[in-house]
Amino acid sequence: MELCRYLFGRFKEAGVRHVFGLPGDFFLPFFRALEEEPGIEPVILTHEPSVGYAADAYARVRGLGVAAVTWGAGALNMVNATAQAYAERSPVLVLSGAPEIAHRDPDALLHHRVKNFASQLRVYREVTGAAVALDDPAHAIAEADRVIDSVLRTKRPGYIEIPRDLIRADVPVPARRTSDIRLKDERAANEALAEVLARIRVAEQPAIYAGAEIRRFRLHDKLVTLAERYGLPVATSLDGKAVFPEQHPLFAGNYLGEIGSPRARKVLESADCVLMLGARMTDVNTGLYTARFDRRRVISAVHEGVTVSYHRFPDVSLEDLMDALLALPEPPRRVEPLPPPPLPEPTPTETLTPDAIIAVLNRVAAGRPVFYAADVGDALFASVELETDMFLGPGYYSSMGFAVPAAIGAGLAEPGRRPIALVGDGAFLMTGLDLVTCVRLGLPAIVILFNNRSHGMLAAMDEPARSYELPTPDYVRLAESLGGRAFRVGTPEELERVLVEALEDVTATILIETVIPPGTYSAPMQRLGAVVHRMKNRSALG
Amino acid sequence: MELCRYLFGRFKEAGVRHVFGLPGDFFLPFFRALEEEPGIEPVILTHEPSVGYAADAYARVRGLGVAAVTWGAGALNMVNATAQAYAERSPVLVLSGAPEIAHRDPDALLHHRVKNFASQLRVYREVTGAAVALDDPAHAIAEADRVIDSVLRTKRPGYIEIPRDLIRADVPVPARRTSDIRLKDERAANEALAEVLARIRVAEQPAIYAGAEIRRFRLHDKLVTLAERYGLPVATSLDGKAVFPEQHPLFAGNYLGEIGSPRARKVLESADCVLMLGARMTDVNTGLYTARFDRRRVISAVHEGVTVSYHRFPDVSLEDLMDALLALPEPPRRVEPLPPPPLPEPTPTETLTPDAIIAVLNRVAAGRPVFYAADVGDALFASVELETDMFLGPGYYSSMGFAVPAAIGAGLAEPGRRPIALVGDGAFLMTGLDLVTCVRLGLPAIVILFNNRSHGMLAAMDEPARSYELPTPDYVRLAESLGGRAFRVGTPEELERVLVEALEDVTATILIETVIPPGTYSAPMQRLGAVVHRMKNRSALG
Repeated sequence: MELCRYLFGRFKEAGVRHVFGLPGDFFLPFFRALEEEPGIEPVILTHEPSVGYAADAYARVRGLGVAAVTWGAGALNMVNATAQAYAERSPVLVLSGAPEIAHRDPDALLHHRVKNFASQLRVYREVTGAAVALDDPAHAIAEADRVIDSVLRTKRPGYIEIPRDLIRADVPVPARRTSDIRLKDERAANEALAEVLARIRVAEQPAIYAGAEIRRFRLHDKLVTLAERYGLPVATSLDGKAVFPEQHPLFAGNYLGEIGSPRARKVLESADCVLMLGARMTDVNTGLYTARFDRRRVISAVHEGVTVSYHRFPDVSLEDLMDALLALPEPPRRVEPLPPPPLPEPTPTETLTPDAIIAVLNRVAAGRPVFYAADVGDALFASVELETDMFLGPGYYSSMGFAVPAAIGAGLAEPGRRPIALVGDGAFLMTGLDLVTCVRLGLPAIVILFNNRSHGMLAAMDEPARSYELPTPDYVRLAESLGGRAFRVGTPEELERVLVEALEDVTATILIETVIPPGTYSAPMQRLGAVVHRMKNRSALG
Repeated sequence: MELCRYLFGRFKEAGVRHVFGLPGDFFLPFFRALEEEPGIEPVILTHEPSVGYAADAYARVRGLGVAAVTWGAGALNMVNATAQAYAERSPVLVLSGAPEIAHRDPDALLHHRVKNFASQLRVYREVTGAAVALDDPAHAIAEADRVIDSVLRTKRPGYIEIPRDLIRADVPVPARRTSDIRLKDERAANEALAEVLARIRVAEQPAIYAGAEIRRFRLHDKLVTLAERYGLPVATSLDGKAVFPEQHPLFAGNYLGEIGSPRARKVLESADCVLMLGARMTDVNTGLYTARFDRRRVISAVHEGVTVSYHRFPDVSLEDLMDALLALPEPPRRVEPLPPPPLPEPTPTETLTPDAIIAVLNRVAAGRPVFYAADVGDALFASVELETDMFLGPGYYSSMGFAVPAAIGAGLAEPGRRPIALVGDGAFLMTGLDLVTCVRLGLPAIVILFNNRSHGMLAAMDEPARSYELPTPDYVRLAESLGGRAFRVGTPEELERVLVEALEDVTATILIETVIPPGTYSAPMQRLGAVVHRMKNRSALG
């Protein structure tokens, strides 16, 4: 069987219908084979960073995303996007072409070569959970399976390098190994369950804090059932935003210590038992370490184990614990539902602040089949107050340039919903040109450009500086040159009118430039700035 | 002394007046300090790949280029650009911010973190000649000096990672080490010289083949003197294009085996002694191994040694040999000057082929103070027939996206010349948005866009395929949206008229879109395609 055909079969088995890529000469036969394969499509972006972000978004939605690039100039241009997928636990498989095995004279100065034929593999080992350079037809499929199984199991990226002369080589297909899935240890799970239950039972104000792994391990439906049956309020992290539906009566907000939702903070910090499900205590999630949790009151379950107070059950996974809690015939207790959230403050009609943009989105897009992809900066932090049930954003690793390619990746992965990208001008300048790819694909993405003419987040954390100022292209003309429709708005009212119009036009790729006065930040970003300045003053004093 | 001030001093000492970068929170104090430093300027680009290419171009012109980026999302987005600088031997210094030493709890989940605090250093070790993560104020300067000296000496990129709390820390400045410069071994040089001279003496048709290291080690003036005194014709490689002035009567063309200049091929392949100076036998330079050299007739000098026929003098460098040849009181012989090159064929007036574009450039821009930066694809291969004395192009590693940022980097490095970027539409979609940075800097670059609506080089080497087709933005409108002037031309006559106009307008950033019929390639690219197809047929047969 041709090696690439075997891979296509495995991709399709995992629900993959699109392979993101950028062709290059060491990988041409792969792209040609892909074009011939029924049931799976190549999606070509403009630059490798975008390829990586699009595959990452697709992976977050569908459980596997594939990025295919050429050796050297291609793959080494996607290291950062892959690193983000690693840090944020997104099941991305990177496929790279490579020179023919037959041409591997160690002294051959082939183009795209850095130091030697192993340089790229060594780089990718630093940013993936499993990596292999195929070099032997006899074991090619077993090695590729090992990497693919690792990606599917751990949700960390994997890397497979395929020499040009192996891509379409006939390789033997071994009897499929049963992949080495860890067996659930019932006794460990029971011991953990008993302790967790006892703690929830005696607690007067238990609450759930849910994070990104809920989405990665596809546990969002179970989370809703769990919260409802136990009557527990649910706050989520920023990197786990929308793992719990945000219009749900039990939803308490996005918790980020002092920086996030004040309501979520009240619920979680007054809870006497916090059940952390798939959440990681990153610097962003903790609001730069302003989160106040008493570890004695915390139960934290992630893929690698459950920690109760100060002790750990390494043999019980997040899923094990959630399954055990759901399998109980009768939940231990119900708490009262949350009081309804405070009504949003009326939007001032004059200034288009990031908060005002979010308020308009909440009013206009609520209940429509959309999803959001947010980029780093105030597009992300303002989203703390966005209400949605589908949201993608690099809330931990924080690489700029994610949103537009992510709208493409997730838009293809979830064709029933319309992508809305929230992106600052700095991030848009990195990968926004892939708007042209949306147009080419006929993908009716809506891009809300937060234009404050600066790297606003840096200015908010520091002081304004020349280096944080951004150039000022005519974004409307730019989007039109790429084949999109485009609008520029300066007030919340204008935004609302244009957004309604954009949502009605279901075929166009649309950019809406919101003109934000420089130095105007969302409430969460203002709190972030305050925390940073407080930390600086402290360290200057001490 | 503040660590960053020490570094600025060293940069200025090496002729650096601009630091290319993109700020991020782990490196903000560096950018602030840079803004305050007299005599050196931060230059902010839109995306890290562009930062790397701009610094690379600056390095090729001035002998050192500095690229400053933040940890993780910044530095890992510049791995490919740095790899290219390594492969093509460009003295780029990468500076990366990093989390404070004080915050290095191994479990701390800081944003931009991949696996652990050493991941990024390990990645950069694969693409640099020297790399260090500073962690000790006492040795910070000695370690930084070691890397900077390595960059200046070997012309390979270096990497220095600076924790945020060290950037402006007062560090002790040790007495400056004499850098460990290899001493010239006179006896080895004399032995090599004697043999080289004897070979040149008996040769009837000796010739020089000069490559990229001539420019890197700043030997271009010596090369001219050497060629003139010995009366030797000079062909250059593609990655060494313009290391010898191309209007010089001794210039024979860009040699690339069957693919390059037919005249250069005739001169070099009929020579009975080829003096290779700073040239590497890469796949591109050899025209995919169609170069025909009899090793018994070759003398090859590179930085790491001189090889005569089948034996090597590892203690004699390129510069040693050139110096020795120039120090002789009387050159051994003169050959006849080359017959003048054939007159260029008249340009057909109808179709705008890549060759026609080059012919127009040769007519209109000749003798003007311009330089060229070419991107991968036919912009690069068509340049085989371009006549110039300053040319930058990734002629070995071949990463797309180089030309526009390189025009910025080299434009700042060489303000007396106007940059002309030659770039295909695929490469322009990667980094062309930095036209907006040209506009912001007031840099009057001229970008000649070779628009064939495809990854034309891939189609030329393979067959047309859907995956090689490119989207078709309105490039004129796009350039205008970025603040540039823009033109679209469809015939050589139009191009000539517009180019004359562009060269007269000395203040604007200008894009000229040349509409090339898809499937139309330059003569060198057609020969490249023929070689690839012949190789494929051979391997299909055998």
